[in-house]
Parts: sequence; structure tokens; C-alpha cells
Amino acid sequence: MKAEIISIGTEITTGSTLNTNSYFISNSLLEYGFETTHQTSVDDNIERLKKVIEIALDRSDLIITTGGLGPTEDDLTKETVADYLNLKLKKDEDMKRKIIQLLGKYKNIPKNNFKQANLIENSKFLKNTVGTAPGIYLEHGDKTIILLPGPPREMEVMFLNEVIPNLKKNDIKIIKKSINLTGIGESLVEEKIKDIIKMYDDIEVATFGKIQGVEIKMIGRGSDLNILENKINHLQRLIDTRFTDKVYSYNNEPIEKIVFELLEKNNLKISFAESCTGGLLSSKFIRQSGISKVFDRSFVTYSNKSKMEELNVSEETLLSFGAVSKETSIEMLKGVLNREDTDLAVSITGIAGPRSDSTNKPVGLIYVSIGNANKTITKKLEFNGNRRSIQDRVVDYALFEIRKFILNNY
Amino acid sequence: MKAEIISIGTEITTGSTLNTNSYFISNSLLEYGFETTHQTSVDDNIERLKKVIEIALDRSDLIITTGGLGPTEDDLTKETVADYLNLKLKKDEDMKRKIIQLLGKYKNIPKNNFKQANLIENSKFLKNTVGTAPGIYLEHGDKTIILLPGPPREMEVMFLNEVIPNLKKNDIKIIKKSINLTGIGESLVEEKIKDIIKMYDDIEVATFGKIQGVEIKMIGRGSDLNILENKINHLQRLIDTRFTDKVYSYNNEPIEKIVFELLEKNNLKISFAESCTGGLLSSKFIRQSGISKVFDRSFVTYSNKSKMEELNVSEETLLSFGAVSKETSIEMLKGVLNREDTDLAVSITGIAGPRSDSTNKPVGLIYVSIGNANKTITKKLEFNGNRRSIQDRVVDYALFEIRKFILNNY
Repeated sequence: MKAEIISIGTEITTGSTLNTNSYFISNSLLEYGFETTHQTSVDDNIERLKKVIEIALDRSDLIITTGGLGPTEDDLTKETVADYLNLKLKKDEDMKRKIIQLLGKYKNIPKNNFKQANLIENSKFLKNTVGTAPGIYLEHGDKTIILLPGPPREMEVMFLNEVIPNLKKNDIKIIKKSINLTGIGESLVEEKIKDIIKMYDDIEVATFGKIQGVEIKMIGRGSDLNILENKINHLQRLIDTRFTDKVYSYNNEPIEKIVFELLEKNNLKISFAESCTGGLLSSKFIRQSGISKVFDRSFVTYSNKSKMEELNVSEETLLSFGAVSKETSIEMLKGVLNREDTDLAVSITGIAGPRSDSTNKPVGLIYVSIGNANKTITKKLEFNGNRRSIQDRVVDYALFEIRKFILNNY
Repeated sequence: MKAEIISIGTEITTGSTLNTNSYFISNSLLEYGFETTHQTSVDDNIERLKKVIEIALDRSDLIITTGGLGPTEDDLTKETVADYLNLKLKKDEDMKRKIIQLLGKYKNIPKNNFKQANLIENSKFLKNTVGTAPGIYLEHGDKTIILLPGPPREMEVMFLNEVIPNLKKNDIKIIKKSINLTGIGESLVEEKIKDIIKMYDDIEVATFGKIQGVEIKMIGRGSDLNILENKINHLQRLIDTRFTDKVYSYNNEPIEKIVFELLEKNNLKISFAESCTGGLLSSKFIRQSGISKVFDRSFVTYSNKSKMEELNVSEETLLSFGAVSKETSIEMLKGVLNREDTDLAVSITGIAGPRSDSTNKPVGLIYVSIGNANKTITKKLEFNGNRRSIQDRVVDYALFEIRKFILNNY
């Protein structure tokens, strides 16, 4: 069963809004056995939208649109779909009452809001528990058409609560597994698994190059989940054996999660001292729930003064070597380690750009130190890129280095 | 001139990778007068890719693909485009030498890497200064077809350095301007600018609902840039007058930039004390270059112990009211304000979830305090959502509140 996601809106096609909806829906659909082969975005133009719907109905079985269900005049998804399929729209009185209830606190409800109470014949509403625009579920011939609102917060809740339970059971089961490698290039990985790629017809194996390594992705399709699982497990064992020390994660579990688990397993607490990344490492880490088991504080010391006052970096070191130096990075690290309650510390200092500091050291020069009471390592890095990408890459780099440090020292 | 972006790769269509390429390209194209009406993603399947190219050639003038230029066997974009257009591929010896040079450090270069040296007849290579896969620029009849690599770091540099200078001058000029409002709903905004929307045929005015407000976007199309500019400026003045106190930004300049500029203008320094957001506010702020003028340090105090040790929150307060309370949030704030070198401070404490703390207060309960030496305000919030969305929303909320605080008090 082929699925297609259609994102409707000029804000998407002109690059005002990043399209996270297609990503979310495709990813979720795969888990329920529906494979997305096409994603299409089209601007708010009735003729082009009609054509896009025509093309989708021709090549896909399940069509999910997002956007264009709002209260404004250029929200035309429902109207266009109804028109293309020659189906009538009629006002649903229940829905109208609900909208009045929801917007009751405003004195005058703009007339356009009641467009959202219109229902396509033979379809049913999908409840919106976050905003006012209900979704639409419609079966037409052997095709299923689902219209969802554009705002991700509304769409995601509706998708999980209202769409998934409505999807017909799929005879074809899909199962996927990824193996994440670091410290090796994509084409070398592919060479090493040439035989594995071709081993089973019903298991597709593909490699994807990532910034910090390579993902080997396996997708199995068939009617028997057990058989698929056994085959994928077999391939995984083969891959694991060939890349032992390179495998760091499965199913794209992010490196911060891997680090979290390693810390927890070794009963370690960690703290960060960040200069040019300004809390980015800490905030990425703290996205995870339960993090208090391994983390209790961090320091963002952007200025020289704050490095001295919060982390006891000496003025002499700052004057002789500069804030971006091995020496400062080590003193920042010691400053954190000398606090109570941490076993492991990481410091980051560098020049994220776009301009250098007074020392004229190059933009992209970064020092990362990692250490515990007994051992300290410092890495000097030179990254290309803009401020944002340098900040992102050093945080990623630091997380991979923390993993190595724990594996080597505990 | 209608543009279409085609993103090729199963990692996109199955939701493994977020498609930032279409977003980046559409946005950049608009600045050069090319309007993207369609974005299409298709999986690594030759037949479907061919069909997608056929559809794009039928409806669009400029077609830019990303992905499928890598060294692996499922990278088939160049081969498929050449095949569909009946054009030959031939090995370019210069490019082959460059690849050997680039990959020389590896002992055995996998044979597949040399696929990247193949050139479609009548096309030219676009230089890749970041990775090994060169792009392709091809004019075919009155259509322009451009093939770019998938990794954003490679694609973005190539797009800016190699694609933009190659694009033919466009007779139709496009000019855009956005006005960002906060504290008002989308349909009310639309009602209030009904006449403005219809004022000029060549200026399209549309509204987009955002989490913290509404964007009014104006796009002008025509042959004379001056005329368009005058009309857009006229509309902007009208809109500014109607929504005086609601306008906080233009052209989607992010709230952190607005806050940065307000701080700079008032010669103020700010510091943050973050618990449940773990450095997210700080890191968002520090993405901006030149930030040292208004910022020198921040504290991530996740545990009770760290709140006491770093910010002097009293044990009594924590015991009587809990870490998530107005009282703790104010003491965190005072703790920051009592440090040197800050005029303004912000503290955030709350329960981002997914579980509550020992007090069983609800997930999503957040206290944000903002203050200076003379005045403190505290806001109590109750957000729905998951951990990540709660963290994001409170950071956004705090930034809007900082803006208000500065406007009201300086």
C-alpha cells in the first residue's frame, strides 16, 4: 500500500516554514505498515492543488494532506478536494456549535471560522483537541483520503489519536532496523556488506552517510512478521560482527542517549562548562527525561570574567594563552571537577565566529577537554562552517568523545 | 518562472531524515526571483523517479534535485535523468583525477566512487568544495535542470557558489516583506486587513498563524522593483498603524534577535538561571554573533543541590514550596542578580515531564521570573505537550516576556 503526503501552503513552497509534517507522518506510517513513496508540497493555488490531487490519486492508495483547513480565505483544501471528487460540502451543526463553544470568549467570531464546520459528503470529521480545524477522513473507491490541519501541534495529536485507529489493517507488514556506525566512511561500509545487501529478497539494506558516521538501514516487507524479524536479526548479527568497534547505536538512537545510558550504567555524574556553545551541549543532553540521575548542573561562561569567577580560570592563563587555548579549556574543566557532585566533566571553548576574538585565532578553532579526577584529554579541532554549524558540530563531536572516554576509562 | 525542488531518497520519504534542503533552496530562490510552486520527494526507485521528473518537466521551468549523487548503488539520479532525456553519460578524466586526489589518503578507493566522475552530455559540473559528489547543470530545451548532492552541508555551499551565478536573470522581480505580530489571532488579523489584502493586484498579502502570533507576509511580483517597493512600504505603513503595539518584528527576525537588539540599545546585560530547560534559553540566545555585548554567563541548575550551591536558593524554600514554585523561581532570579555584571535576569523552573517530581505537581507547570534590581515579575504557566515541546514553548514565552519587560521598564 503506497502512501503519499501532500503539504499545502505557500509558506512551505516558498521556504518560510520548514516542512516537519511530512517527516512526522511518513515516519509514523512506516511503523503501521504503510510505505510513503511520495511527498508533495504545493502552494495555495486551486488549479495546482487539483492537479496534485489528481496525480496522487493515480499513483498512491493512501493520501494524507496537511494544511489549508484554517479559517482564512486561502485555506481551500477541503473545498478543492470536494470539488475535484464531485462531492458536496454541507454545514455540520454539531461542529458549528463546538466552534462557538471554543471561540466563545471572543465577542465576534469572524464568519470565516464557520468554514471549518463544513463536511464533505460520505466523509467523517477527525477530532482536533488542540485547535479549531477538524480533520476529514474519506474513503473514495479503493483510495483513502485524509485531510489534516497544518500546525504540527494540532496535526500530530490528531494523527496519533484519530488517524491511526482508522487506518485499515495492512496485509503487508513492514519492519525496520538501523545500525549506526561511527569512524568509517559510507562507501567502505557498502563494500563490506555487499553480500549482506543481496542476502534476502524481502529485506532491503541501504547505507546513508551521516555527519558523524554511517547508518545501515534494513527494511523488511512481507506477510509474516516472525520470518522478517529472524532475517533482520540474522543480518544484524553479521553486520555487528564485521564492524564491532564501529557500532555505537541502533535505530538512530541519538548519541546523547547512548552517553546517558553509559553514564547511568557506570553510575557517573557529568557536568559541562561551555563557552562558545553557550549551553547547547547541556540543553541537548537535558532533552532526555530522567536525566537527573546523571546530571545536576552546568556552567555557561562566555566572558573571560565569568570563566575566572565561576570556574577559577586564572587571569594569567587567559592573558598568556587566550580564552581559546588548551590551557584555558583544561582550567575550565578543573573548575567544574572541583565542584562537588560530578565524576566527569567536559569543557568547550572556541571561536564559533563569524569574527575571531582579539587574538585573531581562526574561526572554527575549538578546544574540547574531557576528564575525571585522574585523567584529562584535550582535543584541538578546526571546523569550517558558519556559527550555527560550528556550534552544532562541536556539540556532536563532544558527545562522541564522551562515549569514547567512558568506554576507555570505566 | 516556476521552480520545483525534487528531493530523492528513501531516507526522506520514509521519514528517517528531515528534508531541510527543499526549505533552504525555495527560500533562497525566492530572493533571486524564482518562485517554487512544487516540492516533491520520491524514494530511491528508478521508475517512480522517472515519472516524477516527467511530471516536473511538464509543469515547471527550473528543476532542482537533491540527493542520489553519492557513491553507492542506490544513488541513481544522474543515471535516471540522463536516461529519461536520452542523453549519454561519459567519464570525465579531470573529475576522476580530482576524486583520486581527494580520497588519496584511503588505500583502496571503492570503484563506485568513480561513478561521480560521470558527466551527462551537454551539461557541466558544479564544484563540490565540501564532499566528493559534483553537481550537474543542464539546459534542455527551455528547461533548466540542476542536480545537487543530498547532504545539506555540501548542497548549501554548492547552491550559493555554483548555482546562483548560473541562473539566468529573471525578468519578473520578486520582493517580499513580513510583519510579525504577537498577542492577536490569525482570523482577527485577516478581518482587520481585508481592504489591504485587495489593495494592489501585484502584491499578494497572506496571513500565517504562528505559535506566538501571526505573520503577515507580502509578496510583490512585477518588472519594476521600485514600484513594488513603494507599494509594499505603503501597505506596511497601513499595517503598522493598525496593529501598533502588536508588531514585534519584521521579516521573521526571531524574538531572540529582537531581545538582543533591545538589550544592546538600552545597554543592558542579561543572565539566565535554567532548571527544566537546561540551557536551552541560553543556547538559543548565543546562536547570535556579537552576543558578548549583552551576555556573559548563565547557570543550569537542574538539581535542588545546585540551586542552593550556585544560586543561594534556601533549603527552607525548597522544602516548603518545592523546586517548582514561585518562591524558588524568585530566589533563583535573585541568586543570578546578586552576581556582578548583570542588569537583568531570567529564571525558569518547572516540570517538563514526562513524569512529575516528588510533589506530584502537574507536568507542564512552569514558573518564569524576570527582574532587575528594582522589580521582579513571575509568571505561572501550564503548558500541554511533551517534554521537548514544553521546553521549546517556555523558552519562546520567556523571550517574549523579556521583550515586554524591557519595553515597560527602560
